[in-house]
Amino acid sequence: MAAMKLHDLELSGNCYKVRLFCALLGLKPDIVPVDFLAGAHKRSPLVDRNPFGEIPILEDGNVTLRDSQAILVYLARKYGGERWLPTEPAEMAETVSWLMVAENEIARGPNDARLHDKFGYDLDVDLARRKALRILDLMEAHLKSRQWLVLDRPTIADIACMPYLALGHEGGVSLEPYPAIRAWIGRIKQLPGFISMPAL
Amino acid sequence: MAAMKLHDLELSGNCYKVRLFCALLGLKPDIVPVDFLAGAHKRSPLVDRNPFGEIPILEDGNVTLRDSQAILVYLARKYGGERWLPTEPAEMAETVSWLMVAENEIARGPNDARLHDKFGYDLDVDLARRKALRILDLMEAHLKSRQWLVLDRPTIADIACMPYLALGHEGGVSLEPYPAIRAWIGRIKQLPGFISMPAL
Repeated sequence: MAAMKLHDLELSGNCYKVRLFCALLGLKPDIVPVDFLAGAHKRSPLVDRNPFGEIPILEDGNVTLRDSQAILVYLARKYGGERWLPTEPAEMAETVSWLMVAENEIARGPNDARLHDKFGYDLDVDLARRKALRILDLMEAHLKSRQWLVLDRPTIADIACMPYLALGHEGGVSLEPYPAIRAWIGRIKQLPGFISMPAL
Repeated sequence: MAAMKLHDLELSGNCYKVRLFCALLGLKPDIVPVDFLAGAHKRSPLVDRNPFGEIPILEDGNVTLRDSQAILVYLARKYGGERWLPTEPAEMAETVSWLMVAENEIARGPNDARLHDKFGYDLDVDLARRKALRILDLMEAHLKSRQWLVLDRPTIADIACMPYLALGHEGGVSLEPYPAIRAWIGRIKQLPGFISMPAL
């Protein structure tokens, strides 16, 4: 079987969360850098693998997957047993609810603010910062009494939500007022196999 | 055990997708209408069940869940066996990737356009309409060669994605140029147990 392949951008938090989870699982995918500035992700052959024209894209044998959250689900089910994505209905749903936070509130909050400040994206950065503060407030309250987002151990919920919070300072979103979030990020950084990314 | 309870708003597509999936599974939750205009979802006791201040909220025994996509995951795992959400890694991930489309591209596209036009939300409706056309183009291409989004049978991906596409006309987003999407919606409407909602 062909080696696992990750079409990747080093500075993307969505690509990083896949690299990080692979590292935590002890997987070593071939990292294929995508020429993002040249728009390679919007042209053939990449757009044939992901019609949405986005990265990351994971290829594993005859499986090709888009969306970083969905890729975490695949890796957890395929290589992680029950540990990172439990199949018990309420636990799985709770985990997925935080994947949705990564895809929605965090993407449209701290991620958008960073896209504006660091990469010059034309978007409403004031709205992004307001959304960032709202989700930070919610997550701070949630993490005040918990070590991890869902269970008494890390799940893919933690992996999905962490990167763009930890990169928030690149979008003018400080974690200084959020000690529980900072402690939680610190716990993730202590996981065996943890890898970092620029500015994290 | 207490009956299943759904905190609900009839005109919400996110609440409707939960009502619809319950109907397809033969479940009859107690439907508890939320006084949305009065902001009941942002006050106690509802905000204690969902700190995000949103609906739907599902209560089932000692389980309380937020986010319509996560609720679909719970119901599928708890009451639907493998049929609606397979546990095979690639199939589960592919299904989740479409739940992400419901949470991201569809929410920020046709859903936002409808929120603006029908409910007066202050948002960038031109951006929402552009996003709507992009995801409609992508889904039309995807459905041209398929009966259902993921497998050869419906999954929660179809249930999650359908409502706000079928309601798009309330946000000025017509399905007229999208015959494959219209045929797919028609297939969903033929499922045993299907229920509708206003304007669908």
